Amino acid sequence: MKAQNLKEQAIQLHRDYKGKIGVNSKVEINSLEDLSLVYTPGVGDVCKEIEKKPEELNHLTSRGNMVAVVTDGTAVLGLGDIGPGAAMPVMEGKCMLFKNFANIDAFPLCLDTKDVDEIIAIVKALQPTFAGINLEDISAPRCFEIEERLKKEVDIPVFHDDQHGTAIVVLAGLLNALKVVGKQMKQVNIVINGAGAAGISIAKLLLEAGFTNITLVSLEGVVNKSEHWLNPSQQKIAKVTNKENITGTLADAIIGADVFIGVSGPAALNSAHIKKMAKDPIVFAMANPIPEIYPEEALAAGAKVVGTGRSDYPNQVNNLLAFPGIFRGAIDARASDITVEMKIAAAYAIANIIPNNELTATYVIPNALNKEVPKVVAEAVASCVLEKGKITEKTS
Amino acid sequence: MKAQNLKEQAIQLHRDYKGKIGVNSKVEINSLEDLSLVYTPGVGDVCKEIEKKPEELNHLTSRGNMVAVVTDGTAVLGLGDIGPGAAMPVMEGKCMLFKNFANIDAFPLCLDTKDVDEIIAIVKALQPTFAGINLEDISAPRCFEIEERLKKEVDIPVFHDDQHGTAIVVLAGLLNALKVVGKQMKQVNIVINGAGAAGISIAKLLLEAGFTNITLVSLEGVVNKSEHWLNPSQQKIAKVTNKENITGTLADAIIGADVFIGVSGPAALNSAHIKKMAKDPIVFAMANPIPEIYPEEALAAGAKVVGTGRSDYPNQVNNLLAFPGIFRGAIDARASDITVEMKIAAAYAIANIIPNNELTATYVIPNALNKEVPKVVAEAVASCVLEKGKITEKTS
Repeated sequence: MKAQNLKEQAIQLHRDYKGKIGVNSKVEINSLEDLSLVYTPGVGDVCKEIEKKPEELNHLTSRGNMVAVVTDGTAVLGLGDIGPGAAMPVMEGKCMLFKNFANIDAFPLCLDTKDVDEIIAIVKALQPTFAGINLEDISAPRCFEIEERLKKEVDIPVFHDDQHGTAIVVLAGLLNALKVVGKQMKQVNIVINGAGAAGISIAKLLLEAGFTNITLVSLEGVVNKSEHWLNPSQQKIAKVTNKENITGTLADAIIGADVFIGVSGPAALNSAHIKKMAKDPIVFAMANPIPEIYPEEALAAGAKVVGTGRSDYPNQVNNLLAFPGIFRGAIDARASDITVEMKIAAAYAIANIIPNNELTATYVIPNALNKEVPKVVAEAVASCVLEKGKITEKTS
Repeated sequence: MKAQNLKEQAIQLHRDYKGKIGVNSKVEINSLEDLSLVYTPGVGDVCKEIEKKPEELNHLTSRGNMVAVVTDGTAVLGLGDIGPGAAMPVMEGKCMLFKNFANIDAFPLCLDTKDVDEIIAIVKALQPTFAGINLEDISAPRCFEIEERLKKEVDIPVFHDDQHGTAIVVLAGLLNALKVVGKQMKQVNIVINGAGAAGISIAKLLLEAGFTNITLVSLEGVVNKSEHWLNPSQQKIAKVTNKENITGTLADAIIGADVFIGVSGPAALNSAHIKKMAKDPIVFAMANPIPEIYPEEALAAGAKVVGTGRSDYPNQVNNLLAFPGIFRGAIDARASDITVEMKIAAAYAIANIIPNNELTATYVIPNALNKEVPKVVAEAVASCVLEKGKITEKTS
């Protein structure tokens, strides 16, 4: 579809439907008797039941299946700080995806405030309404503080999809790509181009999953703990990455690397870079819509496995593979948090959807619309919670 | 239905459905092309369109038809301060009624805070998400301050249903009851028993509508400006009510009254009271579930028209007759407020649904489930906005 056509079609579709989500009533009201059960006076007994047994809130109301998609509109897609109103189409889209892929009721909360304390206070106050919180398109570094503090201060799962969703799918793709090229996790040398929220989050998850040799590169250069320009998040990650103590630019870091992960911008990687990488390089060029390098060029330069953020090339890194199943599993298991174990379990579940005998260089990541994925992800995530419960039981 | 049966049935229904509302996706996603229109990359153009033309938010997203039902759970039904979680079944019920009776998407926001400033801040921050705010079951006097301040500080309609919904339906019923007994608005002498949020709100609306002789009675006694026990709201209403300067109790105020309006408690009115009223008394005994006096007893004592809050007697005062149409009209006309003119127009629309030749003592208020009511109420309310627009146009 041409860009102009796509634009017109997208706007027309949104206008025709007047938005993409609605609130539906699960019960029909056709008589005063119906009304007396769903509303007064019968509803009073349901209220009293919840007052007596607070855990019934998740069973007797829609709260048990309800997730908030929360934004302040400060980092929407690649559009930046367009404001909470203009962010609504993305948030509604996310809610649709929750429904379509995991049968979760999700509701967009577009907040007209950029104040970290106020955003946190609002989400905390809304705990009686939601079983989980999906943070979306909030700019860094505010997104880190908001997520960290909420994880401590609320009893329901909180997940900043921009940070963790992509990281989980990258890990899944990488696990499969390693099988294709016949390399081991502990051996590979990974360069992540982009040291913002996404890049740092990918680095953290890969380290947690068992990768050991990761180097981040920002626009200023290679993230090295001796550099003066590092921001606080980069200072922190610098301590556990770049074990070869590389300085300089991407051109320096890429020499001998096994894996390139791009969360940067168009054309950040070229053929010359790839030619300096180790044998059978893996390239995830996820800048969207124009990747760090187009797959044709990367393959021609010797890349073995190539993934992008685009749906028109193989191996699309799409966080749709992660977030619906993660929330489904977390809220089904009544998790109070989304832990690193749950994220890693989700990545393995996504990777293992593709049987070993079907793995090829152009099929290391399942199709974004594969509806089996959210199911297996949900099971894997829920198992972590139950497993953790068992361990606690054993050791207590 | 017996109380015990009703309780069990209501709880079971809520458990079976896991709550009464859900979020639905209006568009199906079956292909990557669908996804590219409702989500990335197409959605980016929709965001940019809203950024450029903010008024498109109401046309390109669900915001234009979305109302928040906001509570802090401090005054739920007759149950009191049961908390925001236990309040959820009522809020969901309200959302269902919005959908069923006015095709409005309504979403419950049960807030875990009683702080007036925080509640106001949360609602203000959520303006990009909602086209209207229905405040529900918030205790007095906090509900007054929250509504008054929000009406000034936000650009969308704000309506505290507990105050205004009942008042509008009482006004509607009274307009028709006067026709039945052949009395005029300016002649009648009204006693309102109950001087809390509901009673004061009814008094205010009746005065705005043209009634002139109203006396309120609280548990402490007749609301008279010389009494020392009046709270600030009662002091204010005392200045414009009780023109005969009555003191004492209900037994004093009721002598010669044409109309009794009860928003108090069970058995607050007796036959002796009614016998002291003027000829052809009108009695709205709305305490729920046990009214101030049962209709049989009131009629036997000489009452001519009797209404209650109950669905099993004629003339049920049910705010379901008001709020769906009021919000439908207000958001369709893109009203920035719900004004007193709109409330009065709504009351006349409800009253006029019953043709004069069908009016009887047992039919002054239409059936709560009459789906014509929200339509005519919406038209009447929207006309106020357009009329006001016209007037502004003329005088500017």
